[in-house]
Amino acid sequence: MKIKVSRKEHFNAAHRLFNPELSDLENEKIFGKCSNANYHGHNYEVIVSVLGEPDAKTGYVYDMKKLSDLIRDHVLKKFDHKNLNLDTAYFKNLNPTAENIAVVIWNILREKIDQKLELKITLYETERNFVEYPAH
Amino acid sequence: MKIKVSRKEHFNAAHRLFNPELSDLENEKIFGKCSNANYHGHNYEVIVSVLGEPDAKTGYVYDMKKLSDLIRDHVLKKFDHKNLNLDTAYFKNLNPTAENIAVVIWNILREKIDQKLELKITLYETERNFVEYPAH
Amino acid sequence: MKIKVSRKEHFNAAHRLFNPELSDLENEKIFGKCSNANYHGHNYEVIVSVLGEPDAKTGYVYDMKKLSDLIRDHVLKKFDHKNLNLDTAYFKNLNPTAENIAVVIWNILREKIDQKLELKITLYETERNFVEYPAH
Amino acid sequence: MKIKVSRKEHFNAAHRLFNPELSDLENEKIFGKCSNANYHGHNYEVIVSVLGEPDAKTGYVYDMKKLSDLIRDHVLKKFDHKNLNLDTAYFKNLNPTAENIAVVIWNILREKIDQKLELKITLYETERNFVEYPAH
Amino acid sequence: MKIKVSRKEHFNAAHRLFNPELSDLENEKIFGKCSNANYHGHNYEVIVSVLGEPDAKTGYVYDMKKLSDLIRDHVLKKFDHKNLNLDTAYFKNLNPTAENIAVVIWNILREKIDQKLELKITLYETERNFVEYPAH
Amino acid sequence: MKIKVSRKEHFNAAHRLFNPELSDLENEKIFGKCSNANYHGHNYEVIVSVLGEPDAKTGYVYDMKKLSDLIRDHVLKKFDHKNLNLDTAYFKNLNPTAENIAVVIWNILREKIDQKLELKITLYETERNFVEYPAH
Repeated sequence: MKIKVSRKEHFNAAHRLFNPELSDLENEKIFGKCSNANYHGHNYEVIVSVLGEPDAKTGYVYDMKKLSDLIRDHVLKKFDHKNLNLDTAYFKNLNPTAENIAVVIWNILREKIDQKLELKITLYETERNFVEYPAH
Repeated sequence: MKIKVSRKEHFNAAHRLFNPELSDLENEKIFGKCSNANYHGHNYEVIVSVLGEPDAKTGYVYDMKKLSDLIRDHVLKKFDHKNLNLDTAYFKNLNPTAENIAVVIWNILREKIDQKLELKITLYETERNFVEYPAH
Repeated sequence: MKIKVSRKEHFNAAHRLFNPELSDLENEKIFGKCSNANYHGHNYEVIVSVLGEPDAKTGYVYDMKKLSDLIRDHVLKKFDHKNLNLDTAYFKNLNPTAENIAVVIWNILREKIDQKLELKITLYETERNFVEYPAH
Repeated sequence: MKIKVSRKEHFNAAHRLFNPELSDLENEKIFGKCSNANYHGHNYEVIVSVLGEPDAKTGYVYDMKKLSDLIRDHVLKKFDHKNLNLDTAYFKNLNPTAENIAVVIWNILREKIDQKLELKITLYETERNFVEYPAH
Repeated sequence: MKIKVSRKEHFNAAHRLFNPELSDLENEKIFGKCSNANYHGHNYEVIVSVLGEPDAKTGYVYDMKKLSDLIRDHVLKKFDHKNLNLDTAYFKNLNPTAENIAVVIWNILREKIDQKLELKITLYETERNFVEYPAH
Repeated sequence: MKIKVSRKEHFNAAHRLFNPELSDLENEKIFGKCSNANYHGHNYEVIVSVLGEPDAKTGYVYDMKKLSDLIRDHVLKKFDHKNLNLDTAYFKNLNPTAENIAVVIWNILREKIDQKLELKITLYETERNFVEYPAH
């Protein structure tokens, strides 16, 4: 049976929910106060989970220190203390909903982690709103 | 791959564990202090999770504001600041264990949410006791 | 300078806010849904703090194991899995608001702890509502 | 002895640390990545504490439902899902550090609460950074 | 559909990461400061989850009080306030990584719980590092 | 009025409660399982609070980034992933109770922070046991 190992990190960012293909009125209607043109922000908590067999020599599925470094180098450096809409290439044309941010993080890390290991992202936008990708 | 989006809400309620088909002595034996005839209570935390594909236009699997409203209208209004055994129809003849409360909430919300979306309920009775339905 | 040592414990109880000297209508008007005649309930978190000088021999202001036992024997046994209004002598004629519960716990423990040590009670009724006695 | 009652609420906002009387270089030097011109953001948790004697009739120092409404009407409506620098009058010429935000909230609420009651604000900018005003 | 019921408990223990088949230099290289020969320690949080059908008579999948007792008797008594490497038979020749501790706890409890019920262990080594076994 | 700013950090360490001036039997009698000769350990959470007036230019009482660096350089480097009794000079002849650890940290940081600012240490040994120095 596989084991899942998880590392939690956080970043603080501004964003607004906005689909550039829709009118301002439609954006306002769909996203309400989350669409404020001057942005709002969150303390995002991101949990990166790696699923696989523990290594016989180390007893690790994945060294959590290395997992922490990987998240810092490839996710936090891009997103922490940034405006997700303005400061990152990822959300120039993609609405930074929690769902889309989780998929973007998964795509970034998927190519940094051995394919024999499964990868899962959990993203807390607030303590009460969070998403997981993939769902199962 | 599907995404899971989750919204956490809470309600405060009184209850007692009690099976009316058993004698008082048997109830006392099985449920101990949880069967106190004068009731005790909990701050229940309920997490409602919806699993599906994000909408291309909104980037949402499910609008969390709408999910919050749905939980408030159909769950919290019935259970918050209530005695689960006395004040609700659901537990007149059903023992309000965490397991049964979670199933009741799932049944209430299942008919309010599009069938193409999977639904999952997590219910914390205390910080240390919690249940998930369905289990997988 | 003194040190403050604190121990957190919890109990689950039912209660209703109700002043027997007021009419039902007045109780309903003042306490709203908290006055539900069939009770509601909470997971109460109680933090007991003792302030004093550390003992030269043990390095303890107060042995936290003994503090935990004291809370269990004199507070939790009376309140846990109970209906505060019906099952305890303390709230027969005293409205079990968070404020009053904290004062009652302070009075119970004050006589069990050496007078040279200061005593403070923090009581969480929910994660978002809590009281401290004394305030300073 | 007085009792302290506390209510916790939250708001999500964008901000940047920036003193308009300093050059961009100085702002960058002092505030680092917190001075990003495109803003970043936080899930702020605000705890409003009121200190006084419990009312003999209600057993309340302050009705927490009313305290919650007061915070919502006078603080959250102004700050939630806003850009603190751009969308509020308070931080047009005042740097929105956690210290300054706490003082602003104290000033807003001080005139809404009876002067015989003491008032204290605790503001969490992140889980690891927080301020209290007044300090004692 | 099955329900998952979970009980959280904790234990405080010392450990070091160390593979006796490797040289000290290799251990130091792989495990860094976690391999300190004088040990370090953690407040471990262990969540034991049991998956199955609720019993028609009790409404329980598993009595959480009994689950708590089972964890206390067979896990906490062996690990709490212990040095995992020195004081337990399990880690004499097995590196006490979070992964291996979770598997050991699963093996201990698997034989105490009816085979028709699935069993899952979640172990928090710190708030930011945790593992689950089995992964799915 | 002064403002209090606080920064939370953590370290993981092994320790045992032990007064070398007492016999093994007396240590065992006073400290119970906390005196295990092979050590146990904790995830310590340390909150460092600084009280003073905000600076007119920065809006800071104390730059929390600098406070974090100060804690890392002078506390975490000495205590994290260490055996407090064996690996640090501070507890060679001082029992590492939570009370004594808090006082030691206060003494270390007091000389690094301007005397016009008050200093306070809160130390969580577990989620349920914590100390504050000074108490007021």
